[in-house]
Amino acid sequence: MYTLAVDAMGGDFAPEITVKGCLEALRAFDDIRIRLFGREEEIRPHLSGEEYDAARLEILDARDVITNDEAPMLAVRHKTDSSLVRAAMDVRQGNADALISAGSTGAVLACGMLRIGRIAGVDRPALAAIVPTAAGVPAVIVDAGANVDCRPEYLLRFAQMGDIYARQVLGIQNPRVGLLNIGEEEEKGCQLTKATHELLKTAKLNFTGNVEARGVLNGGADVFVCDGYHGNLVIKASEGAIAALFTMLKRELTSTFVSKVGAALSKPAFRRVKRRMNVNEVGGGPMLGVRGAVVKAHGNSTSHAFFCCLRQARQMAAGQVVEIIEKLDEQIEGGNENV
Amino acid sequence: MYTLAVDAMGGDFAPEITVKGCLEALRAFDDIRIRLFGREEEIRPHLSGEEYDAARLEILDARDVITNDEAPMLAVRHKTDSSLVRAAMDVRQGNADALISAGSTGAVLACGMLRIGRIAGVDRPALAAIVPTAAGVPAVIVDAGANVDCRPEYLLRFAQMGDIYARQVLGIQNPRVGLLNIGEEEEKGCQLTKATHELLKTAKLNFTGNVEARGVLNGGADVFVCDGYHGNLVIKASEGAIAALFTMLKRELTSTFVSKVGAALSKPAFRRVKRRMNVNEVGGGPMLGVRGAVVKAHGNSTSHAFFCCLRQARQMAAGQVVEIIEKLDEQIEGGNENV
Repeated sequence: MYTLAVDAMGGDFAPEITVKGCLEALRAFDDIRIRLFGREEEIRPHLSGEEYDAARLEILDARDVITNDEAPMLAVRHKTDSSLVRAAMDVRQGNADALISAGSTGAVLACGMLRIGRIAGVDRPALAAIVPTAAGVPAVIVDAGANVDCRPEYLLRFAQMGDIYARQVLGIQNPRVGLLNIGEEEEKGCQLTKATHELLKTAKLNFTGNVEARGVLNGGADVFVCDGYHGNLVIKASEGAIAALFTMLKRELTSTFVSKVGAALSKPAFRRVKRRMNVNEVGGGPMLGVRGAVVKAHGNSTSHAFFCCLRQARQMAAGQVVEIIEKLDEQIEGGNENV
Repeated sequence: MYTLAVDAMGGDFAPEITVKGCLEALRAFDDIRIRLFGREEEIRPHLSGEEYDAARLEILDARDVITNDEAPMLAVRHKTDSSLVRAAMDVRQGNADALISAGSTGAVLACGMLRIGRIAGVDRPALAAIVPTAAGVPAVIVDAGANVDCRPEYLLRFAQMGDIYARQVLGIQNPRVGLLNIGEEEEKGCQLTKATHELLKTAKLNFTGNVEARGVLNGGADVFVCDGYHGNLVIKASEGAIAALFTMLKRELTSTFVSKVGAALSKPAFRRVKRRMNVNEVGGGPMLGVRGAVVKAHGNSTSHAFFCCLRQARQMAAGQVVEIIEKLDEQIEGGNENV
């Protein structure tokens, strides 16, 4: 049985979508329990009339809410009765295996650092992004924005944690770990990537060398290792390119009668592509390197997208992602010559 | 009359496509002269039977060729009879206004630096990228890969040169200059972007603040200022996302009979989108900050794509891009309080 601590109040459409996502998860999985933190009187209305296993859903009243406008560190320190901090403390105290929140990214990261706590040996926990690819299998980008101005040793750790996530959650046997870079040749890149390349070459990973950003959505690697600034640029550029293309396709497809007919007939195909490229289906951003499974859901998640994050958190718990990251240093001390 | 020095031998399909591109340009513009450098016996066959104004095309025999596999700096130093170096020297000696080459990016940049020479006050010439956007007007990304590990002052110069290019070549009246960043808030970013933000805020530019990579293909700014490493990541991520989307659309559109019919009817619309997103139509990458207009064409350019680069070089010469960049420091000394 896996216990998920859920921040009911985080996100643009909370608590409606968070509650509905929880109900979907309770129906889909009989091996989870949910501890739902938030204002009980706002949560209850969304439960009435719904069928679910009430024995596995506990509501824990938390009066405060952390908003997107607040300074994350301060909010996490002071708003001790917020739904987010209470859910995080629940993980820290061992009552829950995982924290799921659609709240502010900064606050979720701060909660991971301050309230749940770093795993020994992980200087910089990372926020990974899981992206769908044309190859069919999702890819892990780590770091996707938690850490800018990184040092090579951070990136080595990101690589190790991304590798564990790819194995344990995505079920990839021997993940291809690539170093995000502007060229494939070993000598290419900036100071950071050149130094990181040296570290990764001798690490106990299936390191496949430098990979260009072109490969991110095309299956160029299973794990893309990068500074959070670079990861964030690549993710947003990809999103922007897809949005631009859909804007232009829509404009052109509605510009003549024939193309309108064509568009109508192709609609199901377009819908399938949109669904496959939908980042929500692969879940949210897993925070790696803290002493609990943490999943940051998109702020504008639908209830199904939030459900996907709960499913992902359950997979992280089931796959013992945290426990395996905790053992990274033991493995290293036990004979890995790389660090 | 503008004189273009063309490297006939650079690129994957040279000299066929370079010669054909030149012929298209001679027919399109009667105010250009072309000085074509390369192996005369390889160039001549592509001219036979073609109609063009022979008085404006001069072939200058150059025996050597610089390949993609060579170390750019060494090649540019030693292969003095290569088509690329000869064409660059032609610009340096004042015989031509512009250099156009589809050869190795590194070699073209090295030629710009070593053979044509930097403009006084420009520490780091940049390679810009011109990208089509869903908004209809192309955008300038500068730097797009010539300089990794930049300092804030380099980025200020990139911004000024990108602004000049946008005005003089793209005809944008008051270009919106944005600092590529991972968030729009002023305090967001890495050390480099934070320091650059301060410089740009007080520069004599229409600085519109930080812009996210999402905005690149969607008209979020006219000029995106960034470190070459970041610019290159964003361009390649965008290309990759578009390629991934087309791969998936193709797969889905051919998966059922109905969608195949729909795809057939929508084909002209798709073609229009592909044409509009075609980077070749906007030309190649202009090198900014050297004492001549330099355009790097894609290595796999078609003859029409190469023609677009010649048109672009002509526009750079006509718009006096080089001369205006040369005067940047005068303006600054003459009362601009910003630097």
